Amino acid sequence: MTPDARDFAVTRLGPGRLPSPLKDVPFVDDAARVLFDASLEAIRAAGDPPQFEMAGPRARLHFDPTTLRCGIVTCGGLCPGLNDVIRAVVLALHYQYGVKGTVGFRYGYEGLSPRHGHAPMELTPAVVSSIHEHGGTILASSRGSQDVGEMTDTLERMKIGILFAVGGDGTLKGAHAIAEEARRRGLDLAVIGIPKTIDNDISCIQTSFGFQTAVSEARRATQAAHAEAKGARNGVGLVKLMGRDSGFIAAFATLADPQVNFCLIPEVPIHLEALLAAIERRLETRGHAVVVAAEGAGMDLPDAVVGKDASGNVKLRDVGPWLRDAIGKRLGKGGSVKYIDPSYTIRSVPANPFDAAFCSVLGQNAVHAGMAGCTDMVVGHWRNEFTHVPIPLAVRERKRIDPCGWLWRAVLASTGQPARME
Amino acid sequence: MTPDARDFAVTRLGPGRLPSPLKDVPFVDDAARVLFDASLEAIRAAGDPPQFEMAGPRARLHFDPTTLRCGIVTCGGLCPGLNDVIRAVVLALHYQYGVKGTVGFRYGYEGLSPRHGHAPMELTPAVVSSIHEHGGTILASSRGSQDVGEMTDTLERMKIGILFAVGGDGTLKGAHAIAEEARRRGLDLAVIGIPKTIDNDISCIQTSFGFQTAVSEARRATQAAHAEAKGARNGVGLVKLMGRDSGFIAAFATLADPQVNFCLIPEVPIHLEALLAAIERRLETRGHAVVVAAEGAGMDLPDAVVGKDASGNVKLRDVGPWLRDAIGKRLGKGGSVKYIDPSYTIRSVPANPFDAAFCSVLGQNAVHAGMAGCTDMVVGHWRNEFTHVPIPLAVRERKRIDPCGWLWRAVLASTGQPARME
Amino acid sequence: MTPDARDFAVTRLGPGRLPSPLKDVPFVDDAARVLFDASLEAIRAAGDPPQFEMAGPRARLHFDPTTLRCGIVTCGGLCPGLNDVIRAVVLALHYQYGVKGTVGFRYGYEGLSPRHGHAPMELTPAVVSSIHEHGGTILASSRGSQDVGEMTDTLERMKIGILFAVGGDGTLKGAHAIAEEARRRGLDLAVIGIPKTIDNDISCIQTSFGFQTAVSEARRATQAAHAEAKGARNGVGLVKLMGRDSGFIAAFATLADPQVNFCLIPEVPIHLEALLAAIERRLETRGHAVVVAAEGAGMDLPDAVVGKDASGNVKLRDVGPWLRDAIGKRLGKGGSVKYIDPSYTIRSVPANPFDAAFCSVLGQNAVHAGMAGCTDMVVGHWRNEFTHVPIPLAVRERKRIDPCGWLWRAVLASTGQPARME
Amino acid sequence: MTPDARDFAVTRLGPGRLPSPLKDVPFVDDAARVLFDASLEAIRAAGDPPQFEMAGPRARLHFDPTTLRCGIVTCGGLCPGLNDVIRAVVLALHYQYGVKGTVGFRYGYEGLSPRHGHAPMELTPAVVSSIHEHGGTILASSRGSQDVGEMTDTLERMKIGILFAVGGDGTLKGAHAIAEEARRRGLDLAVIGIPKTIDNDISCIQTSFGFQTAVSEARRATQAAHAEAKGARNGVGLVKLMGRDSGFIAAFATLADPQVNFCLIPEVPIHLEALLAAIERRLETRGHAVVVAAEGAGMDLPDAVVGKDASGNVKLRDVGPWLRDAIGKRLGKGGSVKYIDPSYTIRSVPANPFDAAFCSVLGQNAVHAGMAGCTDMVVGHWRNEFTHVPIPLAVRERKRIDPCGWLWRAVLASTGQPARME
Repeated sequence: MTPDARDFAVTRLGPGRLPSPLKDVPFVDDAARVLFDASLEAIRAAGDPPQFEMAGPRARLHFDPTTLRCGIVTCGGLCPGLNDVIRAVVLALHYQYGVKGTVGFRYGYEGLSPRHGHAPMELTPAVVSSIHEHGGTILASSRGSQDVGEMTDTLERMKIGILFAVGGDGTLKGAHAIAEEARRRGLDLAVIGIPKTIDNDISCIQTSFGFQTAVSEARRATQAAHAEAKGARNGVGLVKLMGRDSGFIAAFATLADPQVNFCLIPEVPIHLEALLAAIERRLETRGHAVVVAAEGAGMDLPDAVVGKDASGNVKLRDVGPWLRDAIGKRLGKGGSVKYIDPSYTIRSVPANPFDAAFCSVLGQNAVHAGMAGCTDMVVGHWRNEFTHVPIPLAVRERKRIDPCGWLWRAVLASTGQPARME
Repeated sequence: MTPDARDFAVTRLGPGRLPSPLKDVPFVDDAARVLFDASLEAIRAAGDPPQFEMAGPRARLHFDPTTLRCGIVTCGGLCPGLNDVIRAVVLALHYQYGVKGTVGFRYGYEGLSPRHGHAPMELTPAVVSSIHEHGGTILASSRGSQDVGEMTDTLERMKIGILFAVGGDGTLKGAHAIAEEARRRGLDLAVIGIPKTIDNDISCIQTSFGFQTAVSEARRATQAAHAEAKGARNGVGLVKLMGRDSGFIAAFATLADPQVNFCLIPEVPIHLEALLAAIERRLETRGHAVVVAAEGAGMDLPDAVVGKDASGNVKLRDVGPWLRDAIGKRLGKGGSVKYIDPSYTIRSVPANPFDAAFCSVLGQNAVHAGMAGCTDMVVGHWRNEFTHVPIPLAVRERKRIDPCGWLWRAVLASTGQPARME
Repeated sequence: MTPDARDFAVTRLGPGRLPSPLKDVPFVDDAARVLFDASLEAIRAAGDPPQFEMAGPRARLHFDPTTLRCGIVTCGGLCPGLNDVIRAVVLALHYQYGVKGTVGFRYGYEGLSPRHGHAPMELTPAVVSSIHEHGGTILASSRGSQDVGEMTDTLERMKIGILFAVGGDGTLKGAHAIAEEARRRGLDLAVIGIPKTIDNDISCIQTSFGFQTAVSEARRATQAAHAEAKGARNGVGLVKLMGRDSGFIAAFATLADPQVNFCLIPEVPIHLEALLAAIERRLETRGHAVVVAAEGAGMDLPDAVVGKDASGNVKLRDVGPWLRDAIGKRLGKGGSVKYIDPSYTIRSVPANPFDAAFCSVLGQNAVHAGMAGCTDMVVGHWRNEFTHVPIPLAVRERKRIDPCGWLWRAVLASTGQPARME
Repeated sequence: MTPDARDFAVTRLGPGRLPSPLKDVPFVDDAARVLFDASLEAIRAAGDPPQFEMAGPRARLHFDPTTLRCGIVTCGGLCPGLNDVIRAVVLALHYQYGVKGTVGFRYGYEGLSPRHGHAPMELTPAVVSSIHEHGGTILASSRGSQDVGEMTDTLERMKIGILFAVGGDGTLKGAHAIAEEARRRGLDLAVIGIPKTIDNDISCIQTSFGFQTAVSEARRATQAAHAEAKGARNGVGLVKLMGRDSGFIAAFATLADPQVNFCLIPEVPIHLEALLAAIERRLETRGHAVVVAAEGAGMDLPDAVVGKDASGNVKLRDVGPWLRDAIGKRLGKGGSVKYIDPSYTIRSVPANPFDAAFCSVLGQNAVHAGMAGCTDMVVGHWRNEFTHVPIPLAVRERKRIDPCGWLWRAVLASTGQPARME
């Protein structure tokens, strides 16, 4: 990706009209920037190097807090920290800006589509006060898209000024579509995304919320796999972790538990025969092995496609049972495989303290951005600063592990696995 | 079960010959007893009411600590606390009695059978010092039985005086067979069992080690199921928990998490149609439901038998996928089921503090019993006292939940589920 | 203590008048009993051996659920599980019996005394639904007694039928006084106590709620003490744990963490010089030591009295700083003491899963007892059954560790500390 | 601080002489850089903007792995992750480079000074295999400096090629002194620091290891403080957290627990009267308050100096008891303060999964740097890359919270505390 500086420009509904009610707070200037590629060569090569707008409270607002109504929606699969984000948005609107009428749309984008009949819920400080202590989302969620026109109708009818959409790739594309439709209709509607991807694979977002919690929980599974592997003759503990396109959870979980001996990620091709041979060598010398596989590992293999679904989309095999069976067949009666799939348990826990803090800041900055009249953007995090990222830039491609970078190098050193298993 | 007082008599290799080296310790008299059935009616009705021998250090020993060699073996599936028991046995032998030569047999009873070629490992205080911090067992394990003659040969050849066998039903039957064979051969060999059953289903043992840890870990799964259920429209979270014959883990996990709405155990018959109807009613009023099912729930249903294995044993269906599919089919597109099977993760964690303390006392009392020359027995726990239980009594039948007792009554009150789903 | 069978008789407001609304539940007969001393000798010696009434739902009720109003109060220091008990009482009243009007009195007995002006709060299922996930008590608490007449006035004025009082020794004495006063006034008021003692020192209660959670949390402190002790030359880690009269938490925490080398409890006298000498010997051979001291350890020493308070009560020194300074002085520059006082952190955590289950059953049984018209009693737990215990019996004396029993014997074996340090 | 590009140059013992034995690994070029100040203005203003050398394996080594001997030392207070770092260094030396003879010096710099008589311990993979599961450091530690000549004598006598020194400011200054002395003597000795500061206050290090674990553990204390505060009338929960010069732990712990109402850090002046008034206002409206204070908060106040120590250094008061007493005096009998000092418990826990992963990469990169012949430097982390930082640059000044940056702004928003309490 060689993004252009223009791709980083954030859309605004208009110039800030009103003074911010925030007191004693250092405001952030609209011109403050964070470099995208902070290498001296890149900067010197570019006449106008790409930079993110810096997030934070603005001195002048677009919306009048006394009349503003806001909505929040959470979409897609569960992720640790959803309730922390909801809470932070509601409390920042209420206590920092004095915005009173905030509603939550239920069951993802279904809640914006009248045909599903889900009534929105009022979100007051009392309602959200202790929701961060629970996993999941009090607004519930759903997958899939809804009619953009109907959703925009709802927002128009309810006089929503800012819609906060928490979700992944598909959700953000939907948020972009709503922002476009609102622009076409001339609505004074800001759409602010808070990117949710437990896989940590959204572009221009260094670390996404819930990711560290997921890594922490994943270690429970790898530790269980290790105990099971050591507890049996030629025991293999196999753990499937989230990561369809990117192996960040698998890689960090491997670094977090040095008992892991093999880490398989989508970014690095594997050859089954080479893997099985490497596992056998490990069993011969150490008597047990722990294997971590990201969901998307090995999906580039020709036999990974197992059919098509009703809509004609390619259907891929499930990496967990595939590896379990392949390793089990190779070991025969001389060994055993214990397979652990902890996905639901990982994604539904409450945020750990780091993620709780992170979600809190994300939510606050989403509110600052919306109040200032920014739209069609997500709040990002880049090189230790919070940023504004246009949605089209965020969803353009997936962030993936660089097989030549420090992370994969550290994984290879930690596991001692062969660098090439092709 | 109406056991006879004679069933409670513990076998001894002979009278205590040597003074115990323990200092400043209140010894327990061989005549000390703990009543089996402590109801006044039962006691008055019986001329000689059944009583357990009380565990603890004896003033006189059968074995000479300076020459004694001991062995430990762990069998069957993992259970929290195995390493704590190993550690407690080794340390009590070493520091309390001065017994130096203790070995661990590897991979369960395979380690006692020369044909498998597993060399035993020396167990010194240094080796076991911090093993209690890990789940699993440092000796590893295996399932299934081995030739009793061969195993006894090994013990005889290695001059083992006390064999500590940690395991469940099958393991204890094997231990009993070794004790019988040793008696036939006239060997001075004591066999002391430490009953291991994460399901808590061994007779005459009020609570078995690892059970509370299992309940604690199970709550992670039910909490995940609850977050997933609430996160979707008509969401059902389904958790399968251990318990083939007895539903203790399912019942306590249900009491430990009041978000559980249905608890299914082997002791209480279920009718699928009634269950599905009850779940539907719950969804109509509350929009989500959490179901906990013990492994053995519904196995009395005629269609639970799905075939026979190679040896002709009846093969039963897996309750988890069965319920997942049945509920999913009933809900159709109007809802969703998230199924969690946390078994490996639960059984492989380290013991929680309570179980750690409990295992420590179990191990110490196993050593006291062995040193005193008791054999063919397990260390039990009954009405807040530690006891000696003859193996034949312990394995005679399974302990099960009384559907008329306080536990099941409390489960019904906590879930609000129908008392009858037949 | 040689209690008499008559001391075990529970007071009733009158015979059960109304049929219970509970469906499909096995009722418990008023005549069901649990033996206090279940040794055959004791039973045979006594013509009428002391027995507890068994807890559980009765077929006939004293109170009419449709008109009944109930109150709950929590008193004294925090203890894990308080919210679980409140929740269980409210939900059992509401869902099992259909009682709607339950209130919580705020700030302990202050909430019953109008002069403090604390308005009671309505306790509906919605209010208590997820309070069990938090430590502390939603009703808040206070120490000390209030005027019995004024408190009874409040209950009379509010037409409270059952008062549930959760607290320790002093609270239960207050509850007894209210029950007596109500009897004198001829009020139809039942007073049901739920005994709260994190120290586990209430008579006739085998294990009190919150105790296991406290032991679990205490292990964090002993593990920290161990890491600190090992991290320095001649390092001593010292942990003070709760237990003014009884050392149960200190003893179980010691068993739960085999790194503890010295356990000091009120029941076993210590001599400072002997203790310091033993610590020195340990440092010489191992280089570090971990010491756990119950609050009340060494309080029998003549110099433990450090003054009198305003009311003339004896003031005892704080065992933590005393030992810290004494050990530190002995070690001088050749070593160091790290002192940890985790009390607030231990007592304020949410109940662990076991305690959560236990509190749930306690609360249910408290409701069953109250509905049946029992009064002036607490719900107890004895030999794996739930019981009714008259308050005067429960507060007659403290439960203490038997220095000749299995618990203290196991502590001595685990620590290797000298049996006598007098 | 306006550092000069020359301050970022890392010292090398000589050019790389030998090919690296690492296979299939993307080497990092010596010329690879990470910008210190990544703002476009700063970069354009500087002719030669300051940049860190990038860490990672080099294609050519200075040391011959087959003959190299290395040493590790840990100094100062405990910090989560010390054992992870030791483990990572030993394993990277052994498995990646084939270096066999690595020793650990015991008790900090005392272990390098023969007068203390602490024999070093051999560090093999077997020794360090599972040390990461324990808090503290297996090498133990000590505070204070030792004679540089004597320490260098030891390294020279033992033919140590690389010394890895894990510690904070003082330790790194000592490491610098050893590197200087070695240079004067013409020794082929590399000194590589791994910066340890639980306070996260070392310059040029974005996040230091153990910091996130400390924040996680701190939340236990703030949650306890919240439960205690809510449990009493006008209850105030006060928690003292680490941070003598910088309030990072206090600030992140505050963001991680939205129940915190006041966060006091060294970087932001406080006025006691204003603080007490603000607490009173909070109690009037909400009935309870939670206060978090970093160790160094309020130390700029004139009365913070309470004396001088033997060496004439200024002695400051302890902020915890000071605030406890001041708040308690203000509240009188109308409220209560519960004070929690969790320092030992926080710093002695094992690293959490994130820190475990982080320590693993830090240790690997320290080994890469040492093998390449770099010296007098620490391994840093800056803008998501691992770096080489000359020790003089790292210890030049403390990193502190910017009161105008996003972190403090988020804290103010989270607590709602007055921005000025001067």
